[in-house]
Amino acid sequence: MASSNETGTTAGQTAHLVELAQHVDDKGLLVVAEFEKQLPFEVRRMFVIAGVPEGEPRGIHAHRECHQFLVCVNGSVRAMVDDGHRREVVVLDRPSLGLHMPPLTWGTQYDYSDDAVLVVLASHTYDGADYVHDYAEFLDLVGGPTTTV
Amino acid sequence: MASSNETGTTAGQTAHLVELAQHVDDKGLLVVAEFEKQLPFEVRRMFVIAGVPEGEPRGIHAHRECHQFLVCVNGSVRAMVDDGHRREVVVLDRPSLGLHMPPLTWGTQYDYSDDAVLVVLASHTYDGADYVHDYAEFLDLVGGPTTTV
Repeated sequence: MASSNETGTTAGQTAHLVELAQHVDDKGLLVVAEFEKQLPFEVRRMFVIAGVPEGEPRGIHAHRECHQFLVCVNGSVRAMVDDGHRREVVVLDRPSLGLHMPPLTWGTQYDYSDDAVLVVLASHTYDGADYVHDYAEFLDLVGGPTTTV
Repeated sequence: MASSNETGTTAGQTAHLVELAQHVDDKGLLVVAEFEKQLPFEVRRMFVIAGVPEGEPRGIHAHRECHQFLVCVNGSVRAMVDDGHRREVVVLDRPSLGLHMPPLTWGTQYDYSDDAVLVVLASHTYDGADYVHDYAEFLDLVGGPTTTV
């Protein structure tokens, strides 16, 4: 069900789910992600998001150059991804399920469960100019369906 | 109390706690770590550890070259760090508190709370030869106090 192309048609260009290796034994659960093998970026920043009130969405923007990799390591959250042509929603509900959002992916995370903890690994350090907060501007950038020329 | 040198005398050589930037507002909690600024390594691997049974320790080894950065993003865990000369225990109990374990740090994590989720970012991909599982061998490597010549 979850595959490297579930939410995108072209690997590396649109958002896609990544199944991470998972080992369960009598010592607990161990999930391992190796970035050189599984993700085409170096990690320079990590966010941890928790305690999000019911009904509160986060995200609601795109990045011009920054890749992001989302893993909900506790609880669950819904993630909407939109490449300007297609919009999809995935549920992130386990540490072994990652969502790679390449640059120019419009994304919103919502329906955080009370106990949700979302870890986001990003390819770039913070740069306010890398954020696109206006959806019309985003569509212009990606040449999306509602763009007028 | 928690500082960049709490568990070590020489930054960059022994394990130390790192306070991460934390923003709390009506949308929840956001913790941000920027690796180039705060940690002297690139992240090539991530572990997530959860569901560890009561009383079960994990770790109990050192790495020859691999740096690790531990953040307990949910619940709590105790981390013992030992550089061969000094042994200390810290409690990791919030997303904004990281523990940097440089190479040649002997470490064990234990007393996981039922809901503990430990995220570990590592500088190297998996290499079994990088692990030191024998404490006497570790002391030989670091020239620790019980080494005999």
